[in-house]
Amino acid sequence: MEIIDGKKVATEIKESIKKEVAVLIDSGERVPHLVAVLVGEDPASQTYVAGKEKACREVGFTSSAYRMPETTKESELLKVVEFLNADEEVDGFIVQLPLPKHINENKILEAISPSKDVDGFHPANLGRMIIGLPTFLPATPFGILKMLEYYKIETEGKHCVVLGRSNIVGTPMSLLMSRKAYPGNSTVTICHTKTTNVKEICLTADILIAAVGQPNYVTEDMVKNGAVVIDVGMHRVEDASKQSGFRLIGDVDYARVAPKCKAISPVPGGVGPMTIVSLILNTLKAYKKEVYS
Amino acid sequence: MEIIDGKKVATEIKESIKKEVAVLIDSGERVPHLVAVLVGEDPASQTYVAGKEKACREVGFTSSAYRMPETTKESELLKVVEFLNADEEVDGFIVQLPLPKHINENKILEAISPSKDVDGFHPANLGRMIIGLPTFLPATPFGILKMLEYYKIETEGKHCVVLGRSNIVGTPMSLLMSRKAYPGNSTVTICHTKTTNVKEICLTADILIAAVGQPNYVTEDMVKNGAVVIDVGMHRVEDASKQSGFRLIGDVDYARVAPKCKAISPVPGGVGPMTIVSLILNTLKAYKKEVYS
Repeated sequence: MEIIDGKKVATEIKESIKKEVAVLIDSGERVPHLVAVLVGEDPASQTYVAGKEKACREVGFTSSAYRMPETTKESELLKVVEFLNADEEVDGFIVQLPLPKHINENKILEAISPSKDVDGFHPANLGRMIIGLPTFLPATPFGILKMLEYYKIETEGKHCVVLGRSNIVGTPMSLLMSRKAYPGNSTVTICHTKTTNVKEICLTADILIAAVGQPNYVTEDMVKNGAVVIDVGMHRVEDASKQSGFRLIGDVDYARVAPKCKAISPVPGGVGPMTIVSLILNTLKAYKKEVYS
Repeated sequence: MEIIDGKKVATEIKESIKKEVAVLIDSGERVPHLVAVLVGEDPASQTYVAGKEKACREVGFTSSAYRMPETTKESELLKVVEFLNADEEVDGFIVQLPLPKHINENKILEAISPSKDVDGFHPANLGRMIIGLPTFLPATPFGILKMLEYYKIETEGKHCVVLGRSNIVGTPMSLLMSRKAYPGNSTVTICHTKTTNVKEICLTADILIAAVGQPNYVTEDMVKNGAVVIDVGMHRVEDASKQSGFRLIGDVDYARVAPKCKAISPVPGGVGPMTIVSLILNTLKAYKKEVYS
């Protein structure tokens, strides 16, 4: 059994980007600039934005954050989006979700210029993914592709089962695994809350991608011997033995499932670190105008 | 075994739209206007555009066609697209594919205003489909949904197998069948040229949607008793007994498969008539500004 070490892959990618940025700096060029917009005080969002800022510093990007109060009006946020769309010194920006309830998230996402949408959430970029045009892929699916690639996981003709149909993970992941590319060319089954025989389907999976949002949902009786398992889940459970009082677990019952696997990504240290690195990769793409010229 | 009669469903939908248009005319309102742009002399495209014009006349829409020579430059076609984008008397327009090889199809498709993209091929509209926002669905998948709805085919929790991963049929169809809606909420498997065990997978299908582009690809040994089969294929085969010298067949070996089915759409008279009617429905949506206000 091989551990798919997202932290290691992420570190290597960041090292490589750092070198590329160092060359830019040496030649007196402007460096890539990522902006995060954060509305309100959601603690998870604050942690996530802090993580993004840290990753930017690590690779040498310029990073900045707009922190706006919970009471920000939709029209005010739209003005910030327009300002960032127009700012030539900003390569990419993200509006951290969730937004306060009085703001229409889709309206904000659609207002972001697709050329700066490094989260890959704009419909125009999701649509480009469907038809195979250059695009910014959503961070989590993009990170998973990078991990599969790094570990040279065979995907062609394999049966890939995706658990979960969210807009930002399950659905794009199922599309990407079925497209004519590597990683891809898999026969893909997407399961969700209305699926009646999840266990039976999972048992046929060569590659199982769990994005259900339920701790330890995937148990060892659901996994075929020799499967590759990617765990997208991330849950805090109380653990008195830890200084913090909690530990992180995923959607997969790792201890019991891992022995059956050919390869498996752990939580923490699997998909998580790859998600932020995807954002960095997308920002670099935006800087190089690789998606929109 | 029930025949899913696309011609009948299409006729009923057109009758209903015709009544709606008659009310508009009686009250002195402008009627919906669909424009088709046709570049070159491709016979299949000419037939298809003629079919669209006929359907428009049947329901009382205004229809017009721009017929441009094979030698039309990309820049000239882009000017026509811009003109149609700006024309307030045009509710929707389609640029008939395929285009001559010297023209970049994706560049043209992306130049069409999403608000007039009644073919539903613009990435922004495909992306809106992914995140469940109001959109123009691509005509063939939209037509299939309408047929399933008309025949009250149960889809929730069913296993839907889609054969083919094209941008305009297989891929959007798989997305639509898995989304949280009716028709939808199916567990969906998408198969393609790299799938190794198509027969085995098809045998587990409650709903089988064949869009492979190979005559009689789906044989009776691939279909479970009581399955619902939708045939998207359309092929001409020589037939001396016909006045035209040919007949149309689909991707499914209808004569042998039909007896096993709970319901099946024939070729011709199944998906085909629904595709044009979807375009009419999308044009009406554009006219009413139901997608973009």
